[in-house]
Amino acid sequence: MLPFDESEYRLRIQRTKEKMREMGLDVFLVFDPANMNYLTGYDGWSFYVPQLVVVARDEEYPLWVGREQDAEGARITTLLPDENIIGYPDHYVHHPDRHPFDFLCHQLKMRELDFREIGVDMDSYYVTPSGFECLHRNLPRATFVNVQVVISALRAVKSEAEIAYMRQAGRIMNRVMEVARDAVRPGVRECDAAGEIRQAQVQGLPGECGGDYPAIEPIILSGQRTAAAHLPWTDKPFEHGTVVILELAACRYRYHAPLARTVYLGNPPGEYLKLADTVIGGLHAALDTLKPGATCEEVEFAWSDYVGRYGVKKTSRIGYSMGLNYPPDWGEHILSLRRGDKTRIEPGMAFHVIPGIWQAGRGIEISESVIVTENGCEPLCQVPRELLVKAA
Amino acid sequence: MLPFDESEYRLRIQRTKEKMREMGLDVFLVFDPANMNYLTGYDGWSFYVPQLVVVARDEEYPLWVGREQDAEGARITTLLPDENIIGYPDHYVHHPDRHPFDFLCHQLKMRELDFREIGVDMDSYYVTPSGFECLHRNLPRATFVNVQVVISALRAVKSEAEIAYMRQAGRIMNRVMEVARDAVRPGVRECDAAGEIRQAQVQGLPGECGGDYPAIEPIILSGQRTAAAHLPWTDKPFEHGTVVILELAACRYRYHAPLARTVYLGNPPGEYLKLADTVIGGLHAALDTLKPGATCEEVEFAWSDYVGRYGVKKTSRIGYSMGLNYPPDWGEHILSLRRGDKTRIEPGMAFHVIPGIWQAGRGIEISESVIVTENGCEPLCQVPRELLVKAA
Repeated sequence: MLPFDESEYRLRIQRTKEKMREMGLDVFLVFDPANMNYLTGYDGWSFYVPQLVVVARDEEYPLWVGREQDAEGARITTLLPDENIIGYPDHYVHHPDRHPFDFLCHQLKMRELDFREIGVDMDSYYVTPSGFECLHRNLPRATFVNVQVVISALRAVKSEAEIAYMRQAGRIMNRVMEVARDAVRPGVRECDAAGEIRQAQVQGLPGECGGDYPAIEPIILSGQRTAAAHLPWTDKPFEHGTVVILELAACRYRYHAPLARTVYLGNPPGEYLKLADTVIGGLHAALDTLKPGATCEEVEFAWSDYVGRYGVKKTSRIGYSMGLNYPPDWGEHILSLRRGDKTRIEPGMAFHVIPGIWQAGRGIEISESVIVTENGCEPLCQVPRELLVKAA
Repeated sequence: MLPFDESEYRLRIQRTKEKMREMGLDVFLVFDPANMNYLTGYDGWSFYVPQLVVVARDEEYPLWVGREQDAEGARITTLLPDENIIGYPDHYVHHPDRHPFDFLCHQLKMRELDFREIGVDMDSYYVTPSGFECLHRNLPRATFVNVQVVISALRAVKSEAEIAYMRQAGRIMNRVMEVARDAVRPGVRECDAAGEIRQAQVQGLPGECGGDYPAIEPIILSGQRTAAAHLPWTDKPFEHGTVVILELAACRYRYHAPLARTVYLGNPPGEYLKLADTVIGGLHAALDTLKPGATCEEVEFAWSDYVGRYGVKKTSRIGYSMGLNYPPDWGEHILSLRRGDKTRIEPGMAFHVIPGIWQAGRGIEISESVIVTENGCEPLCQVPRELLVKAA
């Protein structure tokens, strides 16, 4: 049932333990659903209740600790032996006076893991301040160390097997964008286009593979809403003479290929066409720079040098590393294509290069998702890198 | 652009301030996206970066603080005056050495809100332990008070206008379940059925209203996976002679109507039909008890008394309050239908009554979403309360 060979998970666990050894950590509490999946294969929509994977440096396999009714899901989707899957009783769920981490801490004590150096990813989604307080209260002998990006840093460089799934997501994305571009027409309700997009995302490639749910819902911005980056679709029909931004993704075994394109319904004014050309030129410049040895910020410099010549300025980052993830984000929160990020780019890294320009009625997003190769980068999708004009 | 009259938001803000007065709080930091929406209308997929609404007892309007590129979304979707919408620069995003709450704390200091009693919902999604630590570090003069359920408690009792949207979601859900029941057939891939379901959820009711994205992806469990509560769909085709569980929802302006039904592909064995009858009888018993004046646990007692007579036992809660929400959950995390929850049920509360039974190859889920009326409860959906048998 695992999407990868067990050997791949063992390697990930081993590398995590090596990092733990370097940092002097005995135990690592892994709350991030993407990191839980990365180390064990676990895949369930159960992150709305407290759950985690516990890596102990002296134990072969991690522990999965979650709600009792999800333990069977862990048995089905992980490589863990049954005895490493521990469900907490349901009365811990959403209870004003107890927390599932009371149970967790008891388990850690029973295993004598409580008086150690414990690494915690303190900026994971789904671990709340009260959860963390509960750990502190119950484990007075432990020392907690914030190890925010340790596993994300491992995740940032993908294996061949991971890249194969990302390419598959890219092929699904080609079809999704085709469906989206067809669906966006004057008079069609935004929600109807969104419905067709969602169907294409999930159906995937007939005869080849299905699609998993992307970590972000389709972002469809039209008219004045192109000034805003992350609004949901509405019930309103698309209108002639307006811009429509589509930021979408496809997902395969939680590996993403996001892509943004922009549709102009009507005949764009010359100024807007010029903006589109500038953005596309800037994207090309960025992608030409995105290769092993370059730093993240150099990719942004290539973009801003190019578009600056045409008077375009963008204050936010132009991209980020991405791959395996769960809602609410496909980004990895580790590498950003912006001034100040001096991380060296390596083969196997994946980026969504998305220099979005948001302005009232005149926004534009044209992006690419790429895998870094030995000498450059390879786009995951094959969708024309252009503004789509649908003249009436 | 607001889904409700401004007066409705003003009332919500006023009630929040009354609670703050009772608790001696000057400031309330509201991180939960559902609570942010409840108080201001804010609706964007931006909860993957730190953001919040700040309610100061002495100020007419709350502040919205979020990423600069999402500020325009706040201007479009909220009732807040422009000067109450504050965007932080992009270099705070996913940066190893700074946190957006550094910016937030500076804003609070400038407004002299930093040396007060500050209420914080410490169990919200999307506020992380490091975010909370950042508040502590930057606001040494503040006293933080955990006010976990204050706004959720207000949300639990719905207004007529909110109920109208929930009924609309219920009507969308009727159509979604119809599509789902048609789509589930031997030989059809689970992902293809999921695609049709997602399309129906989002398209909503043609000619009446669109659907918004539900807070949980469709849960589709077939065969052995009916033992697990929250697994995603697969690429595999449904098989003759197996059980398929569908837990789905429709959503309107973030108000949900979830519903679970079970399909048997083939001729169910007598034992399974008996189980289905027992579960449906237990659900009826629970719904008959679910009325103003009863306590949450009494609803569970009605269920367990009934099904216990037929030898069925369930250790997890049989339902929870729900309504307005964002991923990853449509539940409100405040009321649970289980032993020990002695909260009195009131008109306007809404529950998903879902006594799920998960067992290998023989799981079953048949649920109802209801609004509590003056004398009982009203189902939001009109889908036959039965096991659907699709004999070959």
